[in-house]
Amino acid sequence: MTPEREAQYRLKLTEAVTAGHQVLKRGGTALDAVVTAIVLLEDSGIFNAGKGAVFTSAGTCELDASIMNGANRAAGAVAGVKRIKNPIRAARAVMEHSPHVLMVGSGAEAFAAERGLTLVSPKYFGTEEGRRELEKIKAEEARRKKVARQFPSEPAAAAKFGTVGAVALDAQGNLAAGTSTGGMSNKRFGRVGDAPIIGAGTYADNATCAVSCTGHGEYFIRSVVAYDIAALMAYKGLPLKEAAEEVILRKLVTMGGIGGAIALDRQGNIALPFNSPGMHRASIDPDGRLFVGIYRDDG
Amino acid sequence: MTPEREAQYRLKLTEAVTAGHQVLKRGGTALDAVVTAIVLLEDSGIFNAGKGAVFTSAGTCELDASIMNGANRAAGAVAGVKRIKNPIRAARAVMEHSPHVLMVGSGAEAFAAERGLTLVSPKYFGTEEGRRELEKIKAEEARRKKVARQFPSEPAAAAKFGTVGAVALDAQGNLAAGTSTGGMSNKRFGRVGDAPIIGAGTYADNATCAVSCTGHGEYFIRSVVAYDIAALMAYKGLPLKEAAEEVILRKLVTMGGIGGAIALDRQGNIALPFNSPGMHRASIDPDGRLFVGIYRDDG
Repeated sequence: MTPEREAQYRLKLTEAVTAGHQVLKRGGTALDAVVTAIVLLEDSGIFNAGKGAVFTSAGTCELDASIMNGANRAAGAVAGVKRIKNPIRAARAVMEHSPHVLMVGSGAEAFAAERGLTLVSPKYFGTEEGRRELEKIKAEEARRKKVARQFPSEPAAAAKFGTVGAVALDAQGNLAAGTSTGGMSNKRFGRVGDAPIIGAGTYADNATCAVSCTGHGEYFIRSVVAYDIAALMAYKGLPLKEAAEEVILRKLVTMGGIGGAIALDRQGNIALPFNSPGMHRASIDPDGRLFVGIYRDDG
Repeated sequence: MTPEREAQYRLKLTEAVTAGHQVLKRGGTALDAVVTAIVLLEDSGIFNAGKGAVFTSAGTCELDASIMNGANRAAGAVAGVKRIKNPIRAARAVMEHSPHVLMVGSGAEAFAAERGLTLVSPKYFGTEEGRRELEKIKAEEARRKKVARQFPSEPAAAAKFGTVGAVALDAQGNLAAGTSTGGMSNKRFGRVGDAPIIGAGTYADNATCAVSCTGHGEYFIRSVVAYDIAALMAYKGLPLKEAAEEVILRKLVTMGGIGGAIALDRQGNIALPFNSPGMHRASIDPDGRLFVGIYRDDG
């Protein structure tokens, strides 16, 4: 990563976490803070969500997002959408204006349109960098196929994740979590990862914590990662940090799943564990202290 | 329900559980037993899965299914598919022949076709009874709309569930669980319930239990029902029956979620709790005793 690119990431992370924090300082809800931060990241074009979504093996962009309200465990999600500018807004609309939790594909798009959300051309999504990444992965896959004509069981090494997420605690003591992604580079069209799956990529309950995950989605689904952190708090009485680290740094590692999570409890404790070389992350704690990190030794 | 219809259900339940049991008696795997039983139910036309799927509000049939192997927590699922004759087979193909866990819509159909699974015309799915149910619900909705022009927050009273599922324990001590459904009558097209969601509708881990759920899917997703039963066993040390009843008869009832689950642990303990007036269910225990029930007082 070039120093310029790194500075760009740190700036956008600071901007997103500050915007979410401003919402909370003005007395806004945790849900509003989560959506505000994620929309900024979706629109930035430098994360794998919204504008910056990676490409499927078919060269299309298919986006997933989910949101959950810790106050009442209401939840909403969309998956496999190709024309919704801000999938996190669509997830919220499903939660607040439909009797459903998860809507996929053109049905989700029709619903978003009905709710007045901005639809864009599928060409709006994706970046030159994402296009080059896809080409690189496809080239590697072709090399592999010469060795064994087999469907790869692991994403190519070049695949990056870059899902975005946010968790927030508001002045009323309510938690919320949201996640948005373009999925995995070179995924088969129709593949859905953990980001839109309540319990896997996203979970929030005032009784325990708010969690948003990023990483190799298939492992996060099979391990029910986000809810598992909450379950360890509820059933074993673990504090947030221990619960999050048990799941991300031990259980998931044993299984072979790469990734991380951002988690927050009702006391304002923050945990940002990851078992990957780095995770782009930022937080503002209850005392207003900003933290921005990319690599392991950043704080 | 007419006595003829009831007899038909009891016969098909007996047939399915016996067919699954035969697989196990011949030394087959829990996965094979689960698929065998569910394919029979999908093909029967009398349950809301496969052939007998209910209709969306758009008059289409959209099917969901998932499967999980307790031995390694491998999992596969498909959602929103309209042309795959046996969605449970497609879920298994995703698990065994793709690097992904969940595939949706036409991408899932293309994958199933590639794997040689049987595709059918969308007209293959749905029954006259399902058509009448949809019309009845739409009429009720129209009446409601005269009072308040609002999207209903609850499924119309007439909505039935009827998702099918199976859990099995084989001679090697491996657990498996699978679930298949047509979803909810009058659901918006694109809506996906808990059946294809690992952790919500389906979960299996040799360390705890195998679970398959049926009911009002949105509540099952928000409550991460299937995994919650496993978590109560793992983290609180509850036996299977207590864990399953805690989730289905208490936690879910508090939230307002209607439905039930079938669950099995590695010792062959069986739990079939439901908070609805009835749940079509059948089991053969380790001693070979058959049980078939529909109403609460059936056993």
